[in-house]
Amino acid sequence: MQQDYFSFENIQRFITEAMCALGLPLKDSALIGELMAKADLQGSDGHGIIRLAPYAKRILSGGINLNPNIKVIKEKLATALLDGDNAMGHLVMYKATQLAIEKAKTSGIAWVGSHHSNHAGPASLYARMALEHDMIGLYFAVGNANHLPPWGGIDMLLSTNPIAAAIPTREETPIVLDMATTVAAYGKVKAKAQKGELMPEGWMIDKNGAPLLDPKKSEEGFLLPIGGYKGYGLSLVVGLLAGTLNGAAMGKDVIDFNKDYKTTTNTGQTIAIIDPDAFGDIDEFKTQTDKLIRDIRNSAKMGGIKRIWLPGEQSHEKRVEHLKNGIALPQTLVEQLVQLANQLHIQPLTPNQTK
Amino acid sequence: MQQDYFSFENIQRFITEAMCALGLPLKDSALIGELMAKADLQGSDGHGIIRLAPYAKRILSGGINLNPNIKVIKEKLATALLDGDNAMGHLVMYKATQLAIEKAKTSGIAWVGSHHSNHAGPASLYARMALEHDMIGLYFAVGNANHLPPWGGIDMLLSTNPIAAAIPTREETPIVLDMATTVAAYGKVKAKAQKGELMPEGWMIDKNGAPLLDPKKSEEGFLLPIGGYKGYGLSLVVGLLAGTLNGAAMGKDVIDFNKDYKTTTNTGQTIAIIDPDAFGDIDEFKTQTDKLIRDIRNSAKMGGIKRIWLPGEQSHEKRVEHLKNGIALPQTLVEQLVQLANQLHIQPLTPNQTK
Repeated sequence: MQQDYFSFENIQRFITEAMCALGLPLKDSALIGELMAKADLQGSDGHGIIRLAPYAKRILSGGINLNPNIKVIKEKLATALLDGDNAMGHLVMYKATQLAIEKAKTSGIAWVGSHHSNHAGPASLYARMALEHDMIGLYFAVGNANHLPPWGGIDMLLSTNPIAAAIPTREETPIVLDMATTVAAYGKVKAKAQKGELMPEGWMIDKNGAPLLDPKKSEEGFLLPIGGYKGYGLSLVVGLLAGTLNGAAMGKDVIDFNKDYKTTTNTGQTIAIIDPDAFGDIDEFKTQTDKLIRDIRNSAKMGGIKRIWLPGEQSHEKRVEHLKNGIALPQTLVEQLVQLANQLHIQPLTPNQTK
Repeated sequence: MQQDYFSFENIQRFITEAMCALGLPLKDSALIGELMAKADLQGSDGHGIIRLAPYAKRILSGGINLNPNIKVIKEKLATALLDGDNAMGHLVMYKATQLAIEKAKTSGIAWVGSHHSNHAGPASLYARMALEHDMIGLYFAVGNANHLPPWGGIDMLLSTNPIAAAIPTREETPIVLDMATTVAAYGKVKAKAQKGELMPEGWMIDKNGAPLLDPKKSEEGFLLPIGGYKGYGLSLVVGLLAGTLNGAAMGKDVIDFNKDYKTTTNTGQTIAIIDPDAFGDIDEFKTQTDKLIRDIRNSAKMGGIKRIWLPGEQSHEKRVEHLKNGIALPQTLVEQLVQLANQLHIQPLTPNQTK
């Protein structure tokens, strides 16, 4: 399959111009362009420019408020609830994260939730914002489509509700965990279908509980939670913290954003920021984290294993590689984006090189 | 196998008297007695009176400070770090939780960590304390023995590092999640060995990555994290939050409390308390949580499934049943406790009835 490579700046420019053409203010468009391009840069390719066409479809269907008033509607010393006013989720969670960082400087921890938000890209994008302040970021979200039934059930009342954590380090790559509470995220199932490959056992089951291996039949089955009933419980708790607590959609109220482009999703997300300096000395914390990372990396490996990875190292390597060589986009996506460029009368993406 | 049944009060009384006889002040002994008996009451039988003999062994070996000065050594508006002064962990985390509840009333959230603590029983014990204040409790701990290698490794640098969450409800049983980040907790492996049963595939692997099914060979293998590399990442992050952040043991520094009864464990634990009233209306939150619980319970079941359980319902049913009929203790444990009673010159446990 032919793949073109595009620079971070090119992707960022294209998304920004597309958002402007769709009617968003320049400042908001530029922020969304930066955050979405950062998703591609770190290899979160299910959450970057691949989402631009669906976002455009939602905006053109009237499903997004282009001139929102994102505001704090409830606040205590270390908490806040933001009403996202049905804005693009990136704008809501960027604002929430900045507020949480400011609050954590005073309180030691801050916990800021949102409702009437929308899909905001990969969870780690916001948790990582803590790192440049030498703080820890935790992020929880209600997924934008229910693909997970409760344990023992077949009604899909739960989602992949992700968790992200970012931990600052001294010399090592920061630890960044970004995980769905299901064994596979739904995007991975779609990727298998596109490639014409079968899924490994353990990703999905059918309505009788038997393994489902054909990704083209994914509509007939469900994702499996990590650790069986444990992942069901974890997905539920993440949903309660990011959804119900924030007055956002959870359970039956979740709108499938792949099927309904108009109804307000009332997406809920939460960012928590912890200042390690509130518990000890930040330099000592970062030194200890580096030591732990090295102990893990240098520990004995199982036969056939070349390297023990820490969470966040693979995305870091992708970031470095993508900055150097550009970001590969599949041809089908490039063609979709040419169409979008024509539709919005903006300059199409310009490939760096063709490999 | 013969089993005797004991009342909650009898178990509580016995533990309290044992702790007094071991040299702890009455007030501290009574609190430990109550918390340990509550663990048995809710069916957390790996964390209740079964731990009394190992605790006694540690105390008699000089591994616990019997007259500790548990104090806040660092504090901000919404955070605190407690030095547990090598006290029994129950005393440290009870104090930490009470402090977090008080702080959350003002700040909306509070996050209180400990170091120089010790094993404190089941994670849910402390998360649940939030419920009577209509608050949410989250608990994270570094496990007291490393049984989990990093993903791809064979050096056991990580533990079962548990997560607990307690969510208040209106009429329904509160949602209480209490889970190790491994597929099985190590106590479950020991229980299989005692019963002479094989473990299911997925609990443990051997040094070559092959499934390990014989629990008697557990020393030759490792626990598996939930969701593979995801559970490895989750265990690591929980350990960083509950251990490294608090200046407590993590990784290579963790003392195996089943093998070393003397060295200070420097156990780290964290309790976070969230006030739902800071994000909305507590009554509305509890109503929505009830609705979600009912939607899940009443949703369509997979063939052969009788009931869809919510996290916390099974332990609640055990609590009710145990209050009515008493708590069953295996004969080997009862005999061990008779020996301990003789050694400490206290009145042995008195069974209710023999079934």
